[in-house]
Amino acid sequence: MLGFRLLAQDGAARACVVETAHGAFETPAFMPVGTLGAVKGLLPSQLRESGAQIVLGNALHLAWRPGEARVQRLGGLHRFGGWDGPILTDSGGFQIFSLPGLRKITEEGAAFASPVDGAVRLFTPESVVDLECALGADLIMPLDHLKELPCPRSELVEAVDRSIRWAERALRRKVELERPEIALFGIVQGGTDRELRTRSAEGTCKLEFPGFALGGFSVGEETAAMHEAIAFSAPLLPAGKPRYLMGMGTPPDLLHAVGSGMDMFDCTLPTRNGRNAQAFTSEGPLRLRNARFAEDERPLDPRCACQTCRTVSRAFLRHLFLAREMNAAILTSLHNVSFYLELMRGSREAIRAGRFEAFRSEFLSRYREGGAGADEADEAC
Amino acid sequence: MLGFRLLAQDGAARACVVETAHGAFETPAFMPVGTLGAVKGLLPSQLRESGAQIVLGNALHLAWRPGEARVQRLGGLHRFGGWDGPILTDSGGFQIFSLPGLRKITEEGAAFASPVDGAVRLFTPESVVDLECALGADLIMPLDHLKELPCPRSELVEAVDRSIRWAERALRRKVELERPEIALFGIVQGGTDRELRTRSAEGTCKLEFPGFALGGFSVGEETAAMHEAIAFSAPLLPAGKPRYLMGMGTPPDLLHAVGSGMDMFDCTLPTRNGRNAQAFTSEGPLRLRNARFAEDERPLDPRCACQTCRTVSRAFLRHLFLAREMNAAILTSLHNVSFYLELMRGSREAIRAGRFEAFRSEFLSRYREGGAGADEADEAC
Repeated sequence: MLGFRLLAQDGAARACVVETAHGAFETPAFMPVGTLGAVKGLLPSQLRESGAQIVLGNALHLAWRPGEARVQRLGGLHRFGGWDGPILTDSGGFQIFSLPGLRKITEEGAAFASPVDGAVRLFTPESVVDLECALGADLIMPLDHLKELPCPRSELVEAVDRSIRWAERALRRKVELERPEIALFGIVQGGTDRELRTRSAEGTCKLEFPGFALGGFSVGEETAAMHEAIAFSAPLLPAGKPRYLMGMGTPPDLLHAVGSGMDMFDCTLPTRNGRNAQAFTSEGPLRLRNARFAEDERPLDPRCACQTCRTVSRAFLRHLFLAREMNAAILTSLHNVSFYLELMRGSREAIRAGRFEAFRSEFLSRYREGGAGADEADEAC
Repeated sequence: MLGFRLLAQDGAARACVVETAHGAFETPAFMPVGTLGAVKGLLPSQLRESGAQIVLGNALHLAWRPGEARVQRLGGLHRFGGWDGPILTDSGGFQIFSLPGLRKITEEGAAFASPVDGAVRLFTPESVVDLECALGADLIMPLDHLKELPCPRSELVEAVDRSIRWAERALRRKVELERPEIALFGIVQGGTDRELRTRSAEGTCKLEFPGFALGGFSVGEETAAMHEAIAFSAPLLPAGKPRYLMGMGTPPDLLHAVGSGMDMFDCTLPTRNGRNAQAFTSEGPLRLRNARFAEDERPLDPRCACQTCRTVSRAFLRHLFLAREMNAAILTSLHNVSFYLELMRGSREAIRAGRFEAFRSEFLSRYREGGAGADEADEAC
């Protein structure tokens, strides 16, 4: 029942509207990551004010704590976390295949020990759909078999084919559950291998998913190869449905993917780096513990209108980071998330105006030549 | 130059307006504590929305990091921290006499080693006024000699008399600096000893301070003795000037002090306890890690209209505390500060309506009989 409207196309870049049971969101869309039901450091009202239209949760983490049955009894993930707009839950497939811990992968599914209490639980394509429907997100992702790169091609082939079989099982289960307000996406894997991406897309996109994702990027490959593979893979996904690039990347990565025709993005960089004193700005990233900011009265980014930039200086943020004050993480995360969201808003506007390439190249030249990252080495107190 | 208007009196309780160079605030007033220039977990906009009209900073901590000269070069404490309303800085006398570390007290002042870099700095009554004027708060406190209780009476006498001599020196220095927009308060000490409080008040209140404080409470004495001493001491302070009770206490403590005629309060309990999973509510404090909240859908306090209570449940907050998510501290601190501020707003309204005693007894019976604290022992996961 997912609504999808293409508002404008500019080269491969698209401006769309996706309509969910909890309202619509515009694309290109950045989804701030709230793994456990809360975006670290930001309250729902601050997300709204920053321009967020959809947020992300992680089904696996929520299954471990507080448990999907509990979330369901408490009214579902929207009510639980106090965010009443669209939510997408990732299946946690990425975590199952990348977190340290015991795991056993079979055709049936993946057995994995909870890092919370050590209990081993079998995650199958069916049980993950059950889990996500219990949480009650608007958009959900199936369990897939992910491989970190580099990886022998035979293993990649096996993972791609298994992911297709798992996608079929997930979709069957989704139909059985009769939850038409929840949309299950398909995921295309295949690393940076064109043939495998094509094989995965053919097997996945023939299934009746209302949207499709590219998974398995930013898992160890070179940036150039990743960009090339995204540009190659995006057009393999149906043009009439939303396209989601999972779990990445930097601002240049996102603009590259928008230019390749991807619509939705999520990434922990804005919040995680925000907690670790790195700010994203239009002139490149800043390391806020750096001594050169000790008396820098400028806002993080003079081009930014977020609350952090309207209120405090780089010098104050550096002071808070050195003093280990939690407001350092809050203020910098708020800025970083606002910056990512503004990048998407600017992209949407540029696409509708037919000038996305100009927007992107202006952004990139300022971002890369701004010199903000030039003297990041002298990170002193 | 400090403006002071008494709007209403109800028994000993007073409703006043204090006018500073950065705007007015109403009393009874609670001042959220921003030791290093930021109230932990809350942004200036959230403080405003919560009803804060004045915030507190700590001159000693700011002198250690980032240093008062730096704050001054960056435009002063208001601009530095992004709070444009009234600010009071405590001198840090309490910290000098209570923090672990090397100290040497003489008639000249107190030498104390910085916990940041170990550098020993001599704080004198004069240098502390200089320091606070460099920071640029609206209301500042002089260095005083504080004693933790219990304490031999002879030492208390010595501390009281020294504090009076230091107050004279601080006031002289303040006059020399010609900063009429900054108001230096006097501090009355003397523990729970009526004779010493009287002696301290007589020596201090004859000096031309525009406001007076009671210091040296909540430093080890019994609650009943503290309440008795506050009730005894408040009327010793001039009726025509603001009266500030320093560095305490619980909601019942504050209502007792308001009823005794005190006007201004600061305390770290709302934010510190908020970070440690304790919420203040109209039915008493809650320990949010307690298993009984695991599926409690209610807001922290059904009588509270703060953003936390409007948005999320006790169950969600418990989940965030168990998962060590920073939003747990943010949301609970936001509620606790809002709760303290609402307690002051309700007090002001009750005083102006001539029903403060009824307001207080209603609050206390609900707070103590609410049973919220009754089963706090079973703090399980």
